[in-house]
Amino acid sequence: MRFSRDFSGRFGGSEPHFLDWIFAMHRYRSHTCAALRKSDVGGNVRLSGWVHRVRDHGGLLFIDLRDHYGMTQIVADPDSPAFKTAETVRGEWVIRVDGEVKARADEVVNKNLPTGEIEVFAREIEVLSAAKELPLPVFGEPDYPEDIRLKYRFLDLRRDTLHRNIVQRTKIIAEMRKRMGEAGFTEYSTPILTASSPEGARDFLVPSRIHPGTFYALPQAPQQYKQLIMMSGFDRYFQIAPCFRDEDPRADRLPGEFYQLDLEMSFVTQDDVFETMEPVMRGVFETFADGKPVTQKFRRIAYDEAMRKYGSDKPDLRNPIEMQDVSEHFRGSGFKVFAGILANDPRAQVWAIPAKTGGSRAFCDRMNSWAQQEGQPGLGYIFWRKEGDKLEGAGPIAKNIGEERTDAIRTQLGLEDGDAAFFVAGDPSKFVKFAGAARTRAGEELNLVDRDRFELCWIVDFPFFEWNEDEKKIDFAHNPFSMPQGGIDALNGSEPLGIKAFQYDMVCNGYEIASGGIRNHLPETMVKAFEMVGLSRETVEERFGGLYRAFQYGAPPHGGMAAGVDRVVMLLVGATNLREITMFPMNQQAYDLLMNAPSEVSPGQLNELGLRVMPKKKD
Amino acid sequence: MRFSRDFSGRFGGSEPHFLDWIFAMHRYRSHTCAALRKSDVGGNVRLSGWVHRVRDHGGLLFIDLRDHYGMTQIVADPDSPAFKTAETVRGEWVIRVDGEVKARADEVVNKNLPTGEIEVFAREIEVLSAAKELPLPVFGEPDYPEDIRLKYRFLDLRRDTLHRNIVQRTKIIAEMRKRMGEAGFTEYSTPILTASSPEGARDFLVPSRIHPGTFYALPQAPQQYKQLIMMSGFDRYFQIAPCFRDEDPRADRLPGEFYQLDLEMSFVTQDDVFETMEPVMRGVFETFADGKPVTQKFRRIAYDEAMRKYGSDKPDLRNPIEMQDVSEHFRGSGFKVFAGILANDPRAQVWAIPAKTGGSRAFCDRMNSWAQQEGQPGLGYIFWRKEGDKLEGAGPIAKNIGEERTDAIRTQLGLEDGDAAFFVAGDPSKFVKFAGAARTRAGEELNLVDRDRFELCWIVDFPFFEWNEDEKKIDFAHNPFSMPQGGIDALNGSEPLGIKAFQYDMVCNGYEIASGGIRNHLPETMVKAFEMVGLSRETVEERFGGLYRAFQYGAPPHGGMAAGVDRVVMLLVGATNLREITMFPMNQQAYDLLMNAPSEVSPGQLNELGLRVMPKKKD
Repeated sequence: MRFSRDFSGRFGGSEPHFLDWIFAMHRYRSHTCAALRKSDVGGNVRLSGWVHRVRDHGGLLFIDLRDHYGMTQIVADPDSPAFKTAETVRGEWVIRVDGEVKARADEVVNKNLPTGEIEVFAREIEVLSAAKELPLPVFGEPDYPEDIRLKYRFLDLRRDTLHRNIVQRTKIIAEMRKRMGEAGFTEYSTPILTASSPEGARDFLVPSRIHPGTFYALPQAPQQYKQLIMMSGFDRYFQIAPCFRDEDPRADRLPGEFYQLDLEMSFVTQDDVFETMEPVMRGVFETFADGKPVTQKFRRIAYDEAMRKYGSDKPDLRNPIEMQDVSEHFRGSGFKVFAGILANDPRAQVWAIPAKTGGSRAFCDRMNSWAQQEGQPGLGYIFWRKEGDKLEGAGPIAKNIGEERTDAIRTQLGLEDGDAAFFVAGDPSKFVKFAGAARTRAGEELNLVDRDRFELCWIVDFPFFEWNEDEKKIDFAHNPFSMPQGGIDALNGSEPLGIKAFQYDMVCNGYEIASGGIRNHLPETMVKAFEMVGLSRETVEERFGGLYRAFQYGAPPHGGMAAGVDRVVMLLVGATNLREITMFPMNQQAYDLLMNAPSEVSPGQLNELGLRVMPKKKD
Repeated sequence: MRFSRDFSGRFGGSEPHFLDWIFAMHRYRSHTCAALRKSDVGGNVRLSGWVHRVRDHGGLLFIDLRDHYGMTQIVADPDSPAFKTAETVRGEWVIRVDGEVKARADEVVNKNLPTGEIEVFAREIEVLSAAKELPLPVFGEPDYPEDIRLKYRFLDLRRDTLHRNIVQRTKIIAEMRKRMGEAGFTEYSTPILTASSPEGARDFLVPSRIHPGTFYALPQAPQQYKQLIMMSGFDRYFQIAPCFRDEDPRADRLPGEFYQLDLEMSFVTQDDVFETMEPVMRGVFETFADGKPVTQKFRRIAYDEAMRKYGSDKPDLRNPIEMQDVSEHFRGSGFKVFAGILANDPRAQVWAIPAKTGGSRAFCDRMNSWAQQEGQPGLGYIFWRKEGDKLEGAGPIAKNIGEERTDAIRTQLGLEDGDAAFFVAGDPSKFVKFAGAARTRAGEELNLVDRDRFELCWIVDFPFFEWNEDEKKIDFAHNPFSMPQGGIDALNGSEPLGIKAFQYDMVCNGYEIASGGIRNHLPETMVKAFEMVGLSRETVEERFGGLYRAFQYGAPPHGGMAAGVDRVVMLLVGATNLREITMFPMNQQAYDLLMNAPSEVSPGQLNELGLRVMPKKKD
């Protein structure tokens, strides 16, 4: 393998080995386009790849030849037998080049390119495949409409940014697999043609030909299967699992399919899941964080605390702002609006959003205008400034509540000269979402958020039930298969809405990247929980037959979680659009422009399935 | 980690680590059921698992406690506080046991069990989950009807044989992934919701809700996508790819989905694919062959040669029999049947199936009867035996063709005393399948086949076209996307049926385990090939739009293959039924008895999809 070598090209480390060309020159290449170095000067080589760009410099033709691994500069001079062919080639033609490696003069060495110290003087060029005029340029990656990019995805994917993102995605997934294996997990595939599930989002259906009129469904997640795997006596399951939800187009979700790192463990408590998965996920982030710091020990934040401090169950902890309850400072104060709210509603509170460095009238007014755009009456504030030696609270609220209360608020929030605080009042369950948005807004506007880090945490103790105001009954707040904390005793207690679940999320930089729980493996506890939301034992048996049946025959305590592969990849490559990290995505209208799907099918196919397409409704 | 250790239990090597129980006893276990050894004697341990079996020996209760990793014997004596609970437990209950590790007396050491030198004297037993009376016993694995096994798959999967097969399957797939990575391949997922493909088997369809009346299809294989990945500038793709074919029930294929190790490479010739994939597949086989020999250098056998020697394009090379053309010995001979066939049809030949050690009238008559059961008029034979010092050919054919010709045949075939040869005559294209079956039969009946080895080979040079006698036209013999040998010049030549394709299979022990080809990346060559089977350029554009479009914009030469994961696993674990290596299979009627799929869906769901189910036909 004399001519294969380590290199640090576009996707270093996975270069295939080639035959030694001395014994038999390979049909297409002796090296990749990322392989040649100064030490190869004088060698005769063969390269194949795409014509990235052709330049004419005073009669000499320079071709940037590109393959998956990198780029090499080819030179064709007018005396070369290759020159005539070189003159004909255009962008994205595929060619084979034979030639000699020469050192570049010092002043034209390209330090940005691993092959930048050499160039290959072409002796022979063979056109392996010509290209028509390009509907989408590859070189330079100019902006192009998305429908063109999707229709010609094979050109789009040759562009450096997308190409790198896709390779990075595959590496991140491979790293997940590796670390899961090291943590004692085994990858099992679960069926893709399965049963329609009556809960959750809409299923994609697959008509059965052998049993006309009936349907399989594509799994929304392998939830029931992974629990069944635990019932089957396996211990640590994982899967890079394809999941399918037939949802209406949403900006943050591709139509059709998405992937989860899905896992389940037997004989574990919530702490075991945390202690097992924290190193896996931290390791994946650290491997691809490009030097950015990653949280070492994930905080465990109770759902209630997260809502109170951050106004969100997926807080961005890079934002240092923590909200505080300052109700006592307003109760009976001269700021009649808040005092009145507190007096009239026992649930009412006033929350402060401390904003370090936000202490200018201009900023506070901007926040206030933003709040009005969000449909709020406004956003009360105090800001502090030095007046001579005195630290003074400014703004209407400060004026109304007086100096003493204003300073007590400042002290509680730990604020100083040049800082501000914003206030929201009312029933926290109603204002919390807005308060969280105001916290985010203030942190971002004031540049308090350190963007160059990955802050991970667990959110725990989610409520098991929630109140359904429309139907005046309780519903499952999240996953009905989770174990309620306190078990069946808690369900038999008097405060169902106070019950927490062994249910948790992993959150990074304001995104939920994983969700899981310890499962309810006790059939009687499961039936009791379903009865409390108005579903009978018979309904449970009917809807979750396989799982319910399995619980009757020796079910181990078990739990797990599922991490969103797409979201993790987006965070790690810094993409904001799912189509920038997906190889062959559909467009937002759930249409595959490359393959032309969905499409009509033949009457014969429909007939075999026992189906008829109903006439289209007139618009 | 004082109490975790290496061990060689059921699935050695992947035991998770547990907390050191000295600091905090884990809620469920300090060790797995495979972990304890003599060196642990005296320790206090906690185990959880399934009750495999309970035995009462003179008042002492012995519980075999089983988990994913192995088995440990628990002892409850009547003085133990655990005894009362121990008396209540039954098979497949899930329990937690605290107790002390004691050495077994020498005479009751179980050498078949890694934990066989110890037992755990129970101090406390907690029932984690009881089990109802079992519809399917786990202990002892008695035969049970398949529908019960599938409905209670979670019990079936606890049985040792199936449990091991599934674990082995996951390990084989993990090994494939590892070796593909080492060979420079990257794993890319391709879409599962894609376009209906008009070629090949029947597609599973997925109705679109957003575009009612139109359908996605599940991929029969990622063939077009993997070629598009090459067009997109990636170099070595692989995927453990789910594939879907809506076929009628067949014994050797599960309804619904199956998995392929799918791969594609750019800038390669056929030899590159062989040199890359041979070590990967050989390595996978060697890793799991359990000491059985695996072919080191795969023979490359031309399709024509395979058919002539073995009567099959998937020959079992463990069978040493090679057929030979012995026409010349029969031409104008006294055996008028064969002489007449040869005289009347220029294509006619006589093939011999040499059968070492088959030289008895009884065996030859058995083969003849078998041939008649197969619908043949019979199977002519000669067998050789010593008469005094003379080696004599026996049987009606020998009598008719005379001593000289009989001995010439024997010499050509290299046969001796005690051997036989069988003969088939006619048009080889018509008898070849039967001849191959006769070869297989003779090899197996005579125990010439060495069952304890894996014989792998490549079959190459498949014909590109074949004659369609019904429509009196040529058709593609195999994959229409393969490159014809000789390229467009060959297509323009006068002998289309003589053209070979760069198309190949990998065969093991008589099974095709992989298939592939070098692709036709030249659009004009592709169009020409399709035109020759009567399909216009427009049809190609319409049916294979994405791929045909991609070929216009710089397509690299590329090729690859796909290996059947299920078949490889079956060979390696020695299973003969796909349901013995699949976790959650459907039954032969494409029905999932565990999850109850397919099933009827609500009128609302159908309405959203713009579909109506046609009334069932009366039987």
